[in-house]
Amino acid sequence: MRPPLGAAFAPLILSSLPALAADTPPVYESRRETADRLIDAAMSSDEAWRKIAYLGDHIGHRLSGSSQLSRAVDWAAEQMALDGLENVRRQRVMVPKWVRGAERAEMISPRRAELAMLGLGRSIGTPPGGITAPLVVVDSFDALHAIRDSDVHGRIVLWNVPFTTYSETVKYRWSGAKEAALKGAVASLVRTVGRGTLRNPHTGAMAPYEEGIPRIPAAAVSIEDAMMLARISERGEEVTVHLEMNARTEPDAESHNVIGEIVGRERPDEVVVIGGHLDSWDVGQGAQDDGGGCVVSMEAVRLLIDLGLRPRRTIRVVLWTNEENGTAGAEAYRESLGDDVHKHVAAIESDGGVENPWGFGLTVWANEDQDVDEARQERVLEALREIAPLLAKVGADSIAPGGGGADISPLMENLVPGLALRTPMDLYWDIHHSEADTVDKIDPIALNRNVAAMAVMAWALAESTVPLD
Amino acid sequence: MRPPLGAAFAPLILSSLPALAADTPPVYESRRETADRLIDAAMSSDEAWRKIAYLGDHIGHRLSGSSQLSRAVDWAAEQMALDGLENVRRQRVMVPKWVRGAERAEMISPRRAELAMLGLGRSIGTPPGGITAPLVVVDSFDALHAIRDSDVHGRIVLWNVPFTTYSETVKYRWSGAKEAALKGAVASLVRTVGRGTLRNPHTGAMAPYEEGIPRIPAAAVSIEDAMMLARISERGEEVTVHLEMNARTEPDAESHNVIGEIVGRERPDEVVVIGGHLDSWDVGQGAQDDGGGCVVSMEAVRLLIDLGLRPRRTIRVVLWTNEENGTAGAEAYRESLGDDVHKHVAAIESDGGVENPWGFGLTVWANEDQDVDEARQERVLEALREIAPLLAKVGADSIAPGGGGADISPLMENLVPGLALRTPMDLYWDIHHSEADTVDKIDPIALNRNVAAMAVMAWALAESTVPLD
Repeated sequence: MRPPLGAAFAPLILSSLPALAADTPPVYESRRETADRLIDAAMSSDEAWRKIAYLGDHIGHRLSGSSQLSRAVDWAAEQMALDGLENVRRQRVMVPKWVRGAERAEMISPRRAELAMLGLGRSIGTPPGGITAPLVVVDSFDALHAIRDSDVHGRIVLWNVPFTTYSETVKYRWSGAKEAALKGAVASLVRTVGRGTLRNPHTGAMAPYEEGIPRIPAAAVSIEDAMMLARISERGEEVTVHLEMNARTEPDAESHNVIGEIVGRERPDEVVVIGGHLDSWDVGQGAQDDGGGCVVSMEAVRLLIDLGLRPRRTIRVVLWTNEENGTAGAEAYRESLGDDVHKHVAAIESDGGVENPWGFGLTVWANEDQDVDEARQERVLEALREIAPLLAKVGADSIAPGGGGADISPLMENLVPGLALRTPMDLYWDIHHSEADTVDKIDPIALNRNVAAMAVMAWALAESTVPLD
Repeated sequence: MRPPLGAAFAPLILSSLPALAADTPPVYESRRETADRLIDAAMSSDEAWRKIAYLGDHIGHRLSGSSQLSRAVDWAAEQMALDGLENVRRQRVMVPKWVRGAERAEMISPRRAELAMLGLGRSIGTPPGGITAPLVVVDSFDALHAIRDSDVHGRIVLWNVPFTTYSETVKYRWSGAKEAALKGAVASLVRTVGRGTLRNPHTGAMAPYEEGIPRIPAAAVSIEDAMMLARISERGEEVTVHLEMNARTEPDAESHNVIGEIVGRERPDEVVVIGGHLDSWDVGQGAQDDGGGCVVSMEAVRLLIDLGLRPRRTIRVVLWTNEENGTAGAEAYRESLGDDVHKHVAAIESDGGVENPWGFGLTVWANEDQDVDEARQERVLEALREIAPLLAKVGADSIAPGGGGADISPLMENLVPGLALRTPMDLYWDIHHSEADTVDKIDPIALNRNVAAMAVMAWALAESTVPLD
């Protein structure tokens, strides 16, 4: 007989939280045994691969408001029910509906050459017939600000910023159109925010247009094309570009978060929420971003159910809608909780691809302003470090500060500790938001390791006898 | 005073050719000094980069019969003249003119999804409105042959053959349409013959259609799309594809080989010919395939001229036209020589990209049937191994059997030793024949190393006092 699983973590967590009672005997091996069962089950299954391959191949990409996203919602709810998840439900959410429409860009002079491009989410279209204008190439906001307005007016700005980190370079995708418009530009092109130079443009969201600032269309061009346009400009030649976009924003559309759970045996109202986002950009298959995260979360709970491991607290899977261009799903989920948000003991998002996981990142906020609660974060990190060795077998035993995710941010603002399932993201930045984000990029073994990591971490947190505070 | 440069190689070459007289003193250091001057000049110049960047950015891709190829011919001849090459001339060649036209492919069922595709060179178009047919997926010729004709008839064949080596997989691009047509298929799709999975299809030539075999259109699809179509088929679902191609072959067009040289000081009628092909496919910039090889050859001779190093024999640069879909340029050059082909002492082609070179491959044929003359090849290999150490500084000091190139094959059939400037081709198979073959893929330092290797090898062979036989 093993002691009740629920007691397994108490001594280790308590060792870092000395204010709490330490009256439970060491049960390390018992905890290990259950974790190993979850890991073995995850690693010997092809169900995660089957799910992601179906989602990618038979449904495909799924932008908010698209029929594919509706199909994905139906499919996910059906799968959860088939897998025996409890309280399977759809949570209605109205989401923005941005439609790309036909689009193209061409260098007109000094020679004609088609450019590989993708309009940015939220962008308006061009006037009928498109925009043809000379280019001004810059590599930073400062560089644009240093140019006289009259030398930007009527031109198209190209933000030719080499990718360093996502956070450093995504700001040009996000704010480039606004900054360009403020200088009188007629359109904004951003060098693809990503790596992977096989002439593969990456789309993504731009900031909502602001009152009082001219609305200009914005698109991403491939790294190759950005470099070419910049080289030609640097040689002192005037580059003229033609941009034609039929992008438009239609009225909000109905969508749904998909929710299923395994109800806790002792504290069913306390919840560990895990998930990813079911929507994607309208290119590729949304495989690494973020079909993989959805499947990992669905599978983690399926394994618990299959193994008869009902945890102390409820583990809830939420597949959020509209992460890519609005996070309406995340907001709706938070709203639906009311004060029960405080009964969420932890939230884990998998939205960094499903490469071989190395562990979990954690952030604990102190308020809605997203200031970090350093002391509490350190305590929770210590608690996670007691769990992590269970994941050494799949290489996911590192714990680091810096976690969360767009979909769990509203929970974190309500002081819920936010974890991110972490991967090296080696390939991720080559493919995300592009036609190349397809299921062939997913290694089934790495996918299973993510399932194992999510299952063990969620289970351990749901079993914990102490609060993470 | 150094001894005359021309004597420099005699002792070393003779050491491997004992039948010839060995009456020249060792002059190794003198040979080294000149080689170092060439290497230093190559490595300190940005002229090779300037040339390839201009060719790629300002002229772009250049398929046989295109206006861009004509522009490239003009540009190359002009550059050679400006650089002081002698006897700069254009050699008129009539070349095939294949025109891609608008094209697309779409999976129609079990769901609709646009496929990333490129029609194959020489393919006919589809009938107006395109072809819509169910798919049959195979991974080898044998696999297709094993299927009953009635199960292929009226279908589109997808050759889903993973890339191993080029020679092993290119045969499906080359012969796939013929083999499919013989089984009654209505079109042939080939998985991209290459690596680099960012949904980047690679085009290339298919075999000319044969009398008596139905002509069906043929295209390449991206690796991702081939894998997806195969996965869906493997799940037992019927996949239907719509293919629409406006490809056509127009009457032959005028083109030119571009030729320039440095005339030999002692044996001007004996020639070491070096070069690459100026044409490319109609996508990307034809940078690694084979703008780089052209620039390397032009620059090698420019350096000799700039350094005042007139070799014993003539070194001739030939930028061949129409390598990609016909080799009419190579044939025309051979024809123009008549019996003088036997005065070509060696031919060197650079058509393996301009990554960091590791040395040279060599093939010596015994006849027009391309049987290898093993004994002579071994002797010439030994001679090359005496030269190679001069290239250690740029890492290009390896000599291996297996050389040649499509453009120098007609010379090699006339017993001219054929060398290939060799690189690891690490990136080459990711990009060749695709939109991603752009000049940003070229490392200027690696490019200069190729110039150095070509210059030293061509100079050493042109200086040699002994024939390579």
